Amino acid sequence: MGYFLGELVGTLILTLFGCGCVANIALAKSKGQGGGWIVVALGWGFAVAFGVYVAGKYTGAHINPAVTIGLASVGAIDWSLVPVYIGGQMVGGFLGAVLCYLVYLPHWKATEDTGTKLAVFSTMPAIPNVAANFLAEFIGTAVLLFILLGIGVNSFADGLNPLIVGFYIAAIGLSLGGPTGYAINPARDLGPRIAHAVLPIAGKGASGWSYAWIPVVAPICGGIAGATLYKLLAG
Amino acid sequence: MGYFLGELVGTLILTLFGCGCVANIALAKSKGQGGGWIVVALGWGFAVAFGVYVAGKYTGAHINPAVTIGLASVGAIDWSLVPVYIGGQMVGGFLGAVLCYLVYLPHWKATEDTGTKLAVFSTMPAIPNVAANFLAEFIGTAVLLFILLGIGVNSFADGLNPLIVGFYIAAIGLSLGGPTGYAINPARDLGPRIAHAVLPIAGKGASGWSYAWIPVVAPICGGIAGATLYKLLAG
Amino acid sequence: MGYFLGELVGTLILTLFGCGCVANIALAKSKGQGGGWIVVALGWGFAVAFGVYVAGKYTGAHINPAVTIGLASVGAIDWSLVPVYIGGQMVGGFLGAVLCYLVYLPHWKATEDTGTKLAVFSTMPAIPNVAANFLAEFIGTAVLLFILLGIGVNSFADGLNPLIVGFYIAAIGLSLGGPTGYAINPARDLGPRIAHAVLPIAGKGASGWSYAWIPVVAPICGGIAGATLYKLLAG
Amino acid sequence: MGYFLGELVGTLILTLFGCGCVANIALAKSKGQGGGWIVVALGWGFAVAFGVYVAGKYTGAHINPAVTIGLASVGAIDWSLVPVYIGGQMVGGFLGAVLCYLVYLPHWKATEDTGTKLAVFSTMPAIPNVAANFLAEFIGTAVLLFILLGIGVNSFADGLNPLIVGFYIAAIGLSLGGPTGYAINPARDLGPRIAHAVLPIAGKGASGWSYAWIPVVAPICGGIAGATLYKLLAG
Repeated sequence: MGYFLGELVGTLILTLFGCGCVANIALAKSKGQGGGWIVVALGWGFAVAFGVYVAGKYTGAHINPAVTIGLASVGAIDWSLVPVYIGGQMVGGFLGAVLCYLVYLPHWKATEDTGTKLAVFSTMPAIPNVAANFLAEFIGTAVLLFILLGIGVNSFADGLNPLIVGFYIAAIGLSLGGPTGYAINPARDLGPRIAHAVLPIAGKGASGWSYAWIPVVAPICGGIAGATLYKLLAG
Repeated sequence: MGYFLGELVGTLILTLFGCGCVANIALAKSKGQGGGWIVVALGWGFAVAFGVYVAGKYTGAHINPAVTIGLASVGAIDWSLVPVYIGGQMVGGFLGAVLCYLVYLPHWKATEDTGTKLAVFSTMPAIPNVAANFLAEFIGTAVLLFILLGIGVNSFADGLNPLIVGFYIAAIGLSLGGPTGYAINPARDLGPRIAHAVLPIAGKGASGWSYAWIPVVAPICGGIAGATLYKLLAG
Repeated sequence: MGYFLGELVGTLILTLFGCGCVANIALAKSKGQGGGWIVVALGWGFAVAFGVYVAGKYTGAHINPAVTIGLASVGAIDWSLVPVYIGGQMVGGFLGAVLCYLVYLPHWKATEDTGTKLAVFSTMPAIPNVAANFLAEFIGTAVLLFILLGIGVNSFADGLNPLIVGFYIAAIGLSLGGPTGYAINPARDLGPRIAHAVLPIAGKGASGWSYAWIPVVAPICGGIAGATLYKLLAG
Repeated sequence: MGYFLGELVGTLILTLFGCGCVANIALAKSKGQGGGWIVVALGWGFAVAFGVYVAGKYTGAHINPAVTIGLASVGAIDWSLVPVYIGGQMVGGFLGAVLCYLVYLPHWKATEDTGTKLAVFSTMPAIPNVAANFLAEFIGTAVLLFILLGIGVNSFADGLNPLIVGFYIAAIGLSLGGPTGYAINPARDLGPRIAHAVLPIAGKGASGWSYAWIPVVAPICGGIAGATLYKLLAG
């Protein structure tokens, strides 16, 4: 697999498993309904871990435009690779959400609340507040890049590192996910939001477009800030 | 242990622990009653992990006919081994469910709902729908094989790999288990269903035979599809 | 540390952490009250893991008479060491429960139910039935020894193995703990039961002595059976 | 990074993630509200793990004055380094709590109970009792140092050790956290308490200063006791 396909597959796995764990605890009649936040946090953590396991040897497994841009901003990957990485991530993020839609096919009609259905795909803030929501996504992604660089950027995919990265994503979910649902990844949020908009989901509501720019712009800004700060402090 | 016995023992551990975690959260008066989906997902994940730990050095630890057939379909194991693998898996899947029945012996009479008792043994769909249920099991098992090959098929049993495979099964449960209970393994579903049918379970109901073909056929088709797709993409 | 002290310290850690997680979810006003079965299963699993981390290099970290006797029955350790191992385990099991009593000191008076207070220390069956309870403890401990030998008996304490053993104990709790609370260890059950009997626990009830022999005798029989079966099958 | 900055960054990560998981389950309208004790225990465990991952190669990653003083008391680090370590830890503990405050910015006004808001920052006892609360923190920190030394003090930061240390902190939370909320770290408790006192938290109450000395003094005494006991027993 080349860079485009590798990032596509890794990000597809990410959103299939990530959106899937939210569907499992939230959609009506799902067997995991009411499973709680630990299911969401571990579900998204493992989603990243196994996306990284598959994509790692082909691309280094960013599966997140904020990681790609953040690393490019400190010279850890070449800017010329950024478009192809982000292209694969966006397509993969969309396709993973489509697969999740198919897995949970009979549950969309069974679920009444339109907000619950959107929540499977994309994040919406617990308390809408542009500045605060932006700040939460900014800090979350800055911390993401800072610590990924602290763990060691060249080694996401070696040995047990995908699992460690997965536990780290679980940690962000457990601790920083409360206010906005921790998108911290434009492809994870925008790809599935497009899927929500175009798929024939039974009884769906609006796709939350007025909020959609925050989980795109804030993670990119936060990623650059976190990577830059790490380079300043740690050389 | 030879191939037959190794797969038997590994699959016995799988269904003893896997059916056991469902019994623990679902059967009346069980100390883990109400423990929630995290118990089911981690319980089945560890069930696979420790089945792989024990069987790995003898057979490579498929403990799943869909894995065996999927790997054979891409030439990763010889077709001549498939019958002996599947034979061991089916016997082991049955015997593990019998042991689970014995461990929870006084709880069958204490539990009124017949569907709950069947759920300990075998999967039933949350919303019955042949096409959708087939699709959920198909996608789940295709992803299973795709990612197992991505992690590396020759190494399920080395070092910490059984634990990683176990976390991966937990991830499938957390994210894709909501619609059908994620059989993704004919031996895990059919073996215990036969056990449910023949064991003298107090106050048991029907064994759900009209549904029983889906968690057998869909995982096999999905396993072949997932393994083939991986070979196409990753060479 | 010699064999006696090493096993004492390891088993002390086991019952301090193990009894502690039950106290945390069960005792009145405890901050973890209602934390659920996942807390119990992971709590006891980590209790074993860190007992093994500390005792491993001194004794191999059995911290369980059923493990010691099971291993001796297949020649994996010398019978002459068994008394000193079990002596350390029993004293450690008792002392860990005493420390747990001290950590939760103000919560004993706050808790009304005497059964809840006993449950922190020792197991009682969900449904009393001598044969079935014996069978559950027998099977649980037979599986424990069988799989420990499958993972590799000489290496409990190397590298990450204590963590794997801990996850394995968590798996037993998740899956087989429902009927009897999975003592599967005479020192873990009898040591704390003696502590319950002699400590000045506010408003305590009986110590369940009529049941006390089952979590002692059944694990020893099961341990011998599991170890013997493994040697028969795996040479 | 030097010792001061390394400990600052590690402890900042600790309290950002640690306070964050409590905020997530406790503050009104947070998406993880009601997530339960498993979220707290794993959240604080991962908080330590990733603080250690980042700080480890610069300082050995104590991120806890009780660890620093405990190690110094047995000669494992030089007393001359203690002030700079503790200085970094206190500043980091404070700054991490400030970042947590910012991430959850709209949720402080939404939350009515003042005790809940303080609980995000610092510990308060479930049942106030000076001697018993001191004892719980003393035993918890003594066990912390004893087992850290058992795992091996020079290697907190190597390979997977940060994750193991994180699981160990999770274990303390699962098992010993019920009575006092397991501060077991003066910088984790006092730093955020100062943040609670000085930040403009909407509708905040008192900062619990009458209790504040216990999670400072008891962990330091316990750390010295645990480290000394380990050296006595294990040489």
